[in-house]
Amino acid sequence: MFSATVKPRFYETDAFRHVNNIVVAGWFETAREPIFNIFNDGGEAYELPLILAKIEINYVAQIYYGHEVTLKTAIEHVGNSSFIVRHEAWQQGKLVATGTAVQVHFDHNTQKSQPLSDSLRAELTAHLASDPETPIQ
Amino acid sequence: MFSATVKPRFYETDAFRHVNNIVVAGWFETAREPIFNIFNDGGEAYELPLILAKIEINYVAQIYYGHEVTLKTAIEHVGNSSFIVRHEAWQQGKLVATGTAVQVHFDHNTQKSQPLSDSLRAELTAHLASDPETPIQ
Amino acid sequence: MFSATVKPRFYETDAFRHVNNIVVAGWFETAREPIFNIFNDGGEAYELPLILAKIEINYVAQIYYGHEVTLKTAIEHVGNSSFIVRHEAWQQGKLVATGTAVQVHFDHNTQKSQPLSDSLRAELTAHLASDPETPIQ
Amino acid sequence: MFSATVKPRFYETDAFRHVNNIVVAGWFETAREPIFNIFNDGGEAYELPLILAKIEINYVAQIYYGHEVTLKTAIEHVGNSSFIVRHEAWQQGKLVATGTAVQVHFDHNTQKSQPLSDSLRAELTAHLASDPETPIQ
Repeated sequence: MFSATVKPRFYETDAFRHVNNIVVAGWFETAREPIFNIFNDGGEAYELPLILAKIEINYVAQIYYGHEVTLKTAIEHVGNSSFIVRHEAWQQGKLVATGTAVQVHFDHNTQKSQPLSDSLRAELTAHLASDPETPIQ
Repeated sequence: MFSATVKPRFYETDAFRHVNNIVVAGWFETAREPIFNIFNDGGEAYELPLILAKIEINYVAQIYYGHEVTLKTAIEHVGNSSFIVRHEAWQQGKLVATGTAVQVHFDHNTQKSQPLSDSLRAELTAHLASDPETPIQ
Repeated sequence: MFSATVKPRFYETDAFRHVNNIVVAGWFETAREPIFNIFNDGGEAYELPLILAKIEINYVAQIYYGHEVTLKTAIEHVGNSSFIVRHEAWQQGKLVATGTAVQVHFDHNTQKSQPLSDSLRAELTAHLASDPETPIQ
Repeated sequence: MFSATVKPRFYETDAFRHVNNIVVAGWFETAREPIFNIFNDGGEAYELPLILAKIEINYVAQIYYGHEVTLKTAIEHVGNSSFIVRHEAWQQGKLVATGTAVQVHFDHNTQKSQPLSDSLRAELTAHLASDPETPIQ
């Protein structure tokens, strides 16, 4: 649904000579940026009315320096005031990592979660992954 | 069981003026280092016979720059060739993040998982958290 | 001479709500990767026969999240066994950072610097910036 | 004058199996935090009336994972509205990196540099390194 390409940077490797595990958490945050834009089109980054409640990352295969990584991102579930994002990282035609992120629609002034409006819900639903068991198209 | 203290670094903050979410994944990796030492005492870091299969992080409260964070770490479960580590991050007496990490005992030469020996199992079991519902002591 | 584009990532911002200063050091390393390839075409990253002796970064203007940054890179000077790389970062038509990096041609086996061959010297010289006082073309 | 200890984190290594060069820039920022506190005692980090104009880092020797690093920091020069910080990183009794940072006293409201008051100048001068050619005591 959303697709982005990152090129592993040398400083993102570690002593195992692969990309460090932590880096994938950063790439997945970067892959969520088009979703952030749904909530904050034109505003400042720090006004984004979302907070991150939970992440989960599955390290499926080693990720190498020297080859581009494609990040595929879709919406897995839309709740009342939160939604779940689903991530995949592919390198050289191989699935190397998957993950999810639970984002909460949040009002920074009241410091409370807030329901998703119908229009936000519609925009998120348009990016819903059809089937959690099949790769993101 | 294992305890470590980190002081948030200025570059670990983000535009929300809190510690960035990704940073917690790095801190939890750092908190697992005493466990890595069980597997690699005296060896080179890159010889560590462990790979990371999965992480999960729950962001419970905002983490601020300017106050130390205590990382508490215990073993949640010991399997045949893998084990689950449980993490907590505390700041100013408040639980700010929890997480787990699934580590697999791995032979880098054969590129296969390998069973945990009785002595490794005994060392890990000594750090078992008594009850997943109560904070790590 | 060499040009690359990076999009600031959210986790690269800090509490000042700009891109953190440290990040620029990483971007400039990334901008040197085409130069690394001159020395290591097809080899593994860790076999790269170069070490970094010195970096210098001038922070000219604030770097914002939400706008691409163009990294321009050229060779400033070719010495006997080392060379100086010159970097510029541009955002929205404005010069936001400059820097240099001194790289030493290094033999990891003997742990000693080694002279640049004529062919390496020729390749580096082809990317020489004409005049240190004018922007990199 | 100021001393801090950091333990290299696993994710701070790179494929060369040493600490990555970029990491040192972050450590030196961390080593300047006691100086930041002179300017911002009790205030929020983002209110700090300082900006970074320039950094320089000399990589003297490889920095290894598994051994603590001591960061020694002093003031090298106090100017009218700016000052230069001098850094050293030591590991296992060996000098592994040196550096400087030019910090400018800055008014974020007017977006202009501002002179250092006599009391700030006195505090900085108290941490002046006696001789730039000898190690920081």
